[in-house]
Amino acid sequence: MNKTYDTEILSVGTELLLGHVTNTDARDVSEMLSRIGVNVKYHTVVGDNPQRLRQCVEVAKSRADIIITTGGLGPTCDDLTKQILAEAFGLPLVEVKAEMDTLYEYIKGGKELTPNNFTQALLPQGATVFHNRWGTAPGCAFEKDGKIVLMFPGPPKECDPMMEAYGIPYLKKLSDEQIVSHSVRIFGMGESAVDDLFREEMNAMTNPTMAPYAKECDCLLQVTAKARSEEEAEAMLRPVMEHVKERLGEVVYGVDVECIEEAVLPLLKERGMTFAAAESCTGGDVARRFTDMPGASAVFLGGAVTYTNGAKARILGIDPALIEEKGAVSYEVAKAMAERVRLLTGADIGVGVTGLAGPDGDGVHEVGTVFISMAVEGRTYVRETHMGAWRTRSFVRRMAGNHVYDMMRRWLTGLKVE
Amino acid sequence: MNKTYDTEILSVGTELLLGHVTNTDARDVSEMLSRIGVNVKYHTVVGDNPQRLRQCVEVAKSRADIIITTGGLGPTCDDLTKQILAEAFGLPLVEVKAEMDTLYEYIKGGKELTPNNFTQALLPQGATVFHNRWGTAPGCAFEKDGKIVLMFPGPPKECDPMMEAYGIPYLKKLSDEQIVSHSVRIFGMGESAVDDLFREEMNAMTNPTMAPYAKECDCLLQVTAKARSEEEAEAMLRPVMEHVKERLGEVVYGVDVECIEEAVLPLLKERGMTFAAAESCTGGDVARRFTDMPGASAVFLGGAVTYTNGAKARILGIDPALIEEKGAVSYEVAKAMAERVRLLTGADIGVGVTGLAGPDGDGVHEVGTVFISMAVEGRTYVRETHMGAWRTRSFVRRMAGNHVYDMMRRWLTGLKVE
Repeated sequence: MNKTYDTEILSVGTELLLGHVTNTDARDVSEMLSRIGVNVKYHTVVGDNPQRLRQCVEVAKSRADIIITTGGLGPTCDDLTKQILAEAFGLPLVEVKAEMDTLYEYIKGGKELTPNNFTQALLPQGATVFHNRWGTAPGCAFEKDGKIVLMFPGPPKECDPMMEAYGIPYLKKLSDEQIVSHSVRIFGMGESAVDDLFREEMNAMTNPTMAPYAKECDCLLQVTAKARSEEEAEAMLRPVMEHVKERLGEVVYGVDVECIEEAVLPLLKERGMTFAAAESCTGGDVARRFTDMPGASAVFLGGAVTYTNGAKARILGIDPALIEEKGAVSYEVAKAMAERVRLLTGADIGVGVTGLAGPDGDGVHEVGTVFISMAVEGRTYVRETHMGAWRTRSFVRRMAGNHVYDMMRRWLTGLKVE
Repeated sequence: MNKTYDTEILSVGTELLLGHVTNTDARDVSEMLSRIGVNVKYHTVVGDNPQRLRQCVEVAKSRADIIITTGGLGPTCDDLTKQILAEAFGLPLVEVKAEMDTLYEYIKGGKELTPNNFTQALLPQGATVFHNRWGTAPGCAFEKDGKIVLMFPGPPKECDPMMEAYGIPYLKKLSDEQIVSHSVRIFGMGESAVDDLFREEMNAMTNPTMAPYAKECDCLLQVTAKARSEEEAEAMLRPVMEHVKERLGEVVYGVDVECIEEAVLPLLKERGMTFAAAESCTGGDVARRFTDMPGASAVFLGGAVTYTNGAKARILGIDPALIEEKGAVSYEVAKAMAERVRLLTGADIGVGVTGLAGPDGDGVHEVGTVFISMAVEGRTYVRETHMGAWRTRSFVRRMAGNHVYDMMRRWLTGLKVE
């Protein structure tokens, strides 16, 4: 942006302060703003209390150019955001006919509304109204005293789409510069190694810029450019992206994806291949993650959760003598799991996971020891990992799943697997 | 508490403002504080910027009695929290020998530390040191100028256990009143119905108090008492808890548990029974949720994720003609899934889920239609649910899992299942 707009996100709701609800609104709004280059400088959460909300609005006015509120727009007497913000900027609340009409439509449609519901149609005078197609309380935006104020309802299923549909276009208009950003997603190299690799270059860059970020079990490098138009920004990014991907090499699993399974789904679709999973320590999480994505059924046939030795024998038909001899957490059992689930389901690729997620060990291996396997085209690959005994159960399970998807990705793109 | 301590949680980290990370620390710390009756009045998030952090500390000093910081305690030059807080309260940073020794132990253990790592052993003079057994950066607490400051590292896996182990006992000592709180967890009755049921009583109560809260797919009623001692508070809660549980009846699945599967695990253990799951639309999530709990292997044998019709036939041996005739989303196929997975694994209880999680429909049923089944002791129960086509994929999957566990809970406690 030509001018830098410091932004504060002010979330209103006592449930946030009690820890009953996580402030995902602030995260989601921040993420959308960072993509268009708006600098979020503060998040504040305050309860449904007029005095404290008023004080927080004063603090925000003193340090931010853009104030984005989430929550407190509903019809109950707890919902104060509109009143307090309007008052703080000296604007009266006026009835918006289109919103009133919407409420009457609800009544005709058979919904019961209380008199309080109609306060939702009151908005600060002169505000741009953001009609809520995902709920009932409308949002709005106004500019006053050199500040820009946007208000959104609290439920994430209303806040997020409204920010995307109204907030982002509204804020983009303030600028004659466009910001475009891409994330290079990395598995198999840590954030600090990525940082080391590009440290000198990053220090020398001004536009585009690059920055590495750690996620729970992988990391990313975000590359951002500013220009007069999106096309120009994209053109500036292209050589940087090429360079970064080449320098990082095989550890890049995708660009602008959220997780490694999101990179595997299209690879399987392209090749018309299916897979099935046999899971022990991940307990269904490999299947769950993949089926979180709509359209998974085109390539994921199903699988077995063989949490006990008996289940490994009964569902997958693994020889109990093999489990007895080698142990459930072993190269051999992992190999058999991938091979058997492939045969059982008729999938092109069978994957298997067996290991110790903790907190209890098995007296043989350290917690964090996991064998990950993949059977495809007559060959079975097995990866042995030792994540460290200090790792949490959820880390081991998630990381094991990442290895499953990484092995598939590598095989599907012709890279070395083990 | 005899004195009310207004509390502000100040989370430090640019990654929070970019939306790369959700501020779960603030939620978790708030939740723990609400259990001991400490009133959190504000959450603030600020980036790794000394000037803005300093300003946020000044704001917090002006409006809160207790300031709890999360994040910014690590060894990199971004990590400023300790320095800025110490400075704001006029305290020098001094080297803490025990923490220095710990760092030397790491080096002996083979870990590589940079000179910066040693700044972690510098803490505000006179502070109570919170040794970090879950990571490297220690936390601390001090009292100065009538304010109480506690600092914790940012990673939730360090912040949460440190708050529990050090923060809560530290804050409890400030008070000669004890607050005790219990959560009655409810599935099968919505938050507003619970609110209606107890509205009059709640309005008339002062100590103990009650309040209902909605979770994604269930709700809870929190009952809280204040007294001189924990025993006294518990004694005050006992008749209220009895009354509430009796009035709510069968929809209560547990007290002080986090989710319904947590209530099912001990019920199965008590009766020495095992179960197995056959999942279609939940895609492994029923198994994943159960195996998130350590100790699940004592009662959960495993199961099948039969995401496609072929997998239902090949893994579970369901007659393809039945699927053809009745459809994969049907009473009959749900029934067969529970029965077949029970037989296949030899479990005492077999459960099955088949339905439409969306966003795509099957041309027959509305999205949100899910059949949930349970085969046990010669009988198979099937529940047909219609959650509504507007529901998200993740809601339908989670709610379907809740129904699975609710059917098990009801059967195991002798209640009506369907």
